[in-house]
Amino acid sequence: MSTADVAVIMGSQSDWDTMRHAAETLEALKIPHEARIVSAHRTPERMYDFARSAKADGFKVIIAGAGGAAHLPGMVAALTTLPVFGVPVQSKALSGLDSLYSIVQMPAGVPVGTLAIGVAGATNAALLAASVLALADPALSQRLEAWRAARTGAVAERPA
Amino acid sequence: MSTADVAVIMGSQSDWDTMRHAAETLEALKIPHEARIVSAHRTPERMYDFARSAKADGFKVIIAGAGGAAHLPGMVAALTTLPVFGVPVQSKALSGLDSLYSIVQMPAGVPVGTLAIGVAGATNAALLAASVLALADPALSQRLEAWRAARTGAVAERPA
Amino acid sequence: MSTADVAVIMGSQSDWDTMRHAAETLEALKIPHEARIVSAHRTPERMYDFARSAKADGFKVIIAGAGGAAHLPGMVAALTTLPVFGVPVQSKALSGLDSLYSIVQMPAGVPVGTLAIGVAGATNAALLAASVLALADPALSQRLEAWRAARTGAVAERPA
Amino acid sequence: MSTADVAVIMGSQSDWDTMRHAAETLEALKIPHEARIVSAHRTPERMYDFARSAKADGFKVIIAGAGGAAHLPGMVAALTTLPVFGVPVQSKALSGLDSLYSIVQMPAGVPVGTLAIGVAGATNAALLAASVLALADPALSQRLEAWRAARTGAVAERPA
Amino acid sequence: MSTADVAVIMGSQSDWDTMRHAAETLEALKIPHEARIVSAHRTPERMYDFARSAKADGFKVIIAGAGGAAHLPGMVAALTTLPVFGVPVQSKALSGLDSLYSIVQMPAGVPVGTLAIGVAGATNAALLAASVLALADPALSQRLEAWRAARTGAVAERPA
Amino acid sequence: MSTADVAVIMGSQSDWDTMRHAAETLEALKIPHEARIVSAHRTPERMYDFARSAKADGFKVIIAGAGGAAHLPGMVAALTTLPVFGVPVQSKALSGLDSLYSIVQMPAGVPVGTLAIGVAGATNAALLAASVLALADPALSQRLEAWRAARTGAVAERPA
Amino acid sequence: MSTADVAVIMGSQSDWDTMRHAAETLEALKIPHEARIVSAHRTPERMYDFARSAKADGFKVIIAGAGGAAHLPGMVAALTTLPVFGVPVQSKALSGLDSLYSIVQMPAGVPVGTLAIGVAGATNAALLAASVLALADPALSQRLEAWRAARTGAVAERPA
Amino acid sequence: MSTADVAVIMGSQSDWDTMRHAAETLEALKIPHEARIVSAHRTPERMYDFARSAKADGFKVIIAGAGGAAHLPGMVAALTTLPVFGVPVQSKALSGLDSLYSIVQMPAGVPVGTLAIGVAGATNAALLAASVLALADPALSQRLEAWRAARTGAVAERPA
Repeated sequence: MSTADVAVIMGSQSDWDTMRHAAETLEALKIPHEARIVSAHRTPERMYDFARSAKADGFKVIIAGAGGAAHLPGMVAALTTLPVFGVPVQSKALSGLDSLYSIVQMPAGVPVGTLAIGVAGATNAALLAASVLALADPALSQRLEAWRAARTGAVAERPA
Repeated sequence: MSTADVAVIMGSQSDWDTMRHAAETLEALKIPHEARIVSAHRTPERMYDFARSAKADGFKVIIAGAGGAAHLPGMVAALTTLPVFGVPVQSKALSGLDSLYSIVQMPAGVPVGTLAIGVAGATNAALLAASVLALADPALSQRLEAWRAARTGAVAERPA
Repeated sequence: MSTADVAVIMGSQSDWDTMRHAAETLEALKIPHEARIVSAHRTPERMYDFARSAKADGFKVIIAGAGGAAHLPGMVAALTTLPVFGVPVQSKALSGLDSLYSIVQMPAGVPVGTLAIGVAGATNAALLAASVLALADPALSQRLEAWRAARTGAVAERPA
Repeated sequence: MSTADVAVIMGSQSDWDTMRHAAETLEALKIPHEARIVSAHRTPERMYDFARSAKADGFKVIIAGAGGAAHLPGMVAALTTLPVFGVPVQSKALSGLDSLYSIVQMPAGVPVGTLAIGVAGATNAALLAASVLALADPALSQRLEAWRAARTGAVAERPA
Repeated sequence: MSTADVAVIMGSQSDWDTMRHAAETLEALKIPHEARIVSAHRTPERMYDFARSAKADGFKVIIAGAGGAAHLPGMVAALTTLPVFGVPVQSKALSGLDSLYSIVQMPAGVPVGTLAIGVAGATNAALLAASVLALADPALSQRLEAWRAARTGAVAERPA
Repeated sequence: MSTADVAVIMGSQSDWDTMRHAAETLEALKIPHEARIVSAHRTPERMYDFARSAKADGFKVIIAGAGGAAHLPGMVAALTTLPVFGVPVQSKALSGLDSLYSIVQMPAGVPVGTLAIGVAGATNAALLAASVLALADPALSQRLEAWRAARTGAVAERPA
Repeated sequence: MSTADVAVIMGSQSDWDTMRHAAETLEALKIPHEARIVSAHRTPERMYDFARSAKADGFKVIIAGAGGAAHLPGMVAALTTLPVFGVPVQSKALSGLDSLYSIVQMPAGVPVGTLAIGVAGATNAALLAASVLALADPALSQRLEAWRAARTGAVAERPA
Repeated sequence: MSTADVAVIMGSQSDWDTMRHAAETLEALKIPHEARIVSAHRTPERMYDFARSAKADGFKVIIAGAGGAAHLPGMVAALTTLPVFGVPVQSKALSGLDSLYSIVQMPAGVPVGTLAIGVAGATNAALLAASVLALADPALSQRLEAWRAARTGAVAERPA
């Protein structure tokens, strides 16, 4: 049983440069989380085990990042009814358009809430997870509001 | 104060052909919801009022569908910390690719969990909302599991 | 244990309009085959079971067709070392470009030999399977050469 | 009340590298202008206040630059009847194609005159604003003609 | 000397199905206008004559629609300093993406304010022209505000 | 009257990095040619004068390179019946896809023979011009065959 | 030995709907031509024989149309130094974008002058062939000028 | 007669940076192979000779890599009934999208099993060849399973 609310999973070590922004944002919002490498293609059994037991393990939200023919978010979503948020990692040849299509174009029945390609998407996956968890956690709701307010306050009036 | 948990909003009447699939799926899962037309471009004040008061009005999740330069999901997300799920409505010239880019490519700080273009996306937005609400509602969780199991059971072994 | 050499699998009944062209081509070449519906997203357990046992079941080549966020070919390829040939089914909004990217852009380590979008791809997946099986089957090799020669002979000299 | 005819607004400080070319071109044409950061997503209230009062504040033309899911130009256009010219800032993953679609594909009723992606677009937004203001300002019209004539004169006969 | 403020030009008769929406919107706003066929490719001399004399002829704004390799808006803009608004007509093979790129991607120095592909763009080109002319015409400004208010008022609260 | 058979024109000095490959290939094939900057947008009069008199000036083939909203090849083709070959120069944001669409998608009636994006296209425009001129010039035909044979001969048997 | 100046070849009977427009335009200009089906993939030997002997057979220009992975124009160009003009036939899934890329993106050394996707491209290939042949045929040059003038004259002043 | 089972061919020396990954993977799996440069466009005769005799020469599988208008894999497939696997080499302007379309979109009748753009595709072409050869070679089958297992085992549990 994990004590983390959010699992941040990714297809390979190389995705961590992107996905660390999800972890850092969860950290900033004091949301217990855990980062793991779970490859749909290289470790399909691990993926099955992870997804099948994620709910029982205590996770509430899953953030999954992958690039290219990015099957991880959708396959995990097929194996659990927890909310799954997908992050298309920017790929070399197609700049993440392949990742985006592979994650967002899920057929009716198995949803993946997809965020932007790359770092912005990883950060936003964490914020979306926070907004979900905040529904039942007023203190987190306040931290999230504060995070947003701080961002708003940091916007200068004029470019420099 | 609304008694609905989920708001299903869309930019225009013509989006209803797509978005009714979100409403119907919520109906099937017995999730209280409300469908409204809120146009970012034609009724920006209505959009502000809706988004600013959505949390106080009792909504927990917002599903927003729009097509073309689809600003509704992202603007609502900018005005609330409730989870917002976006549905790119298929557009005429660009087949919803414009809708998809306008919804999913949000900058870091304001997330929209984006679903597939068109009807599949509308259905899945409802399922994702269900998975979020189910975190605090074991009965809904069971209905969701049952809905998924029924879908699985309906897959024939061989094509006919 | 199946007596079929080729498994033709697809994500849903609606893919059969495309994938029947694979089956018909295998039929024309007298290659034992079997068509099944195996959905990566709706029946992930069935997919695991199928892929994990495909080699022991006697299959030699797997043809897998799917549309949209098409994970079936790649996931099956992750679970077997049999050759897997993927057919991107033409999708509604993105005309199969999403299917193509989801199937062809596999990461190093897990190959899917991808054919053209739609009917041409389904037919060609069968021909590619035939060329593989013909390596150890001279009679099939002759049938395949004859099939090709007949196609060549059927090309008129002038348009009419 | 501003003494500027043109407002040059942008979604973030990072857009200034692009949008400064609008400001510099307005400068070269001696058109009073003002540059501000107005983020649709991080400062939606500021955006509303700006757009709602832009006409009363004395602005005649608004130039708005943004990248990714670029909602600023369209939302400002929804809140004013002043002419709005949009500049798609080049984005990282999709090279500004997302910015372009988000700005140009506005639904009937709310126009944004969209320029090219990046620096060329920023320069041209200023020139288009100049052509608008020149309709009622013969001196500006002459300066604009002169600017154009100088550009024409600067084109060498042969490449070097 | 024309008594029209706005010229609505297009590359061919077939573009009129799209461009009539510009004319009708100008009509609704009581803006004097004139529609002409001016083909950059089939009647380049006519295009030169038109563009070179447009200002002297009394036009204040030019709306130009074209499809495919759409050179009309940009070439007219190269030959006048009047504001030129371009409408990408939806093309057969590439759905207007070729038209859009050919119109919007103008180099620094010669601006074309580009609207959406197809009918929405034609309508919006007229509205943008109205917003420009309204700067010096308070009565038109009121008509434009009224037009917008009527559109806002026509948005139903709920889908039907 | 020029003594050159081929005019190599381009929209700006910056296109010369690409277009010099056309000139160098013509040089290698000993085809008299002349390189000029002719901007459709900045020097439309020069373009008209050039295209209108190109045939009388003795040119037989025109090679035109341009980037972005690349109107030069098509406009020149509209003003002469000499064969025009277009080279899409690689652009910054859209990698030359805008250039390609703007050049190749000409409407029926005014042809531009379009080559590949960038340097390969510039080289090939020269080779295509050579193949045209060689129809009436047996010595050039031999030089062209020799050029091709040398290229064939230079292909190693194995990679190194 | 053929008495035709232009060969119009295509990959299959189904391309004739497009390519007949090339033949009809050549007919209108009284240019001797011949239409043949030559499939790069189904009749590679026929293609080799055709291309290798095209010059000796008296052809001066080759027009080649094909769709999808369209190899015919480029392969013919690799086997002859006659000018080859390529017509991308509109394909089902990708609307001819695959055909266009396959034809236009030739590497340096082997040029194919590429026309627009579909019917416009077929017509223009004939016109481009005419402009090439007209270099040595003043009567044809006059017919071509007349054809163009008739088209110019047929453009109405106003849309109807 | 070659003693190699797999031919790794490519259009030019510059493709070797990509295709060497196919050769290295075959090497790792101890599969006899041979690498050759065979250019469809510069050495069409060599290509014909290679493809026509490949089967008699003892090759069982052909891996062909090419970029841009990549005709090599499809043309070789048209000339042999051996299985052909195609690798789209990443191109400069279009990032390999042109290569991908040119290889994968083959018409019904002539299949090319296409892998991912670039290095991943080259590696996977070798693995797919291995899976084909392993059907008749139990020792290779074991080496392939071991290769895959080693890859699976090398995936860390957590990112670092």
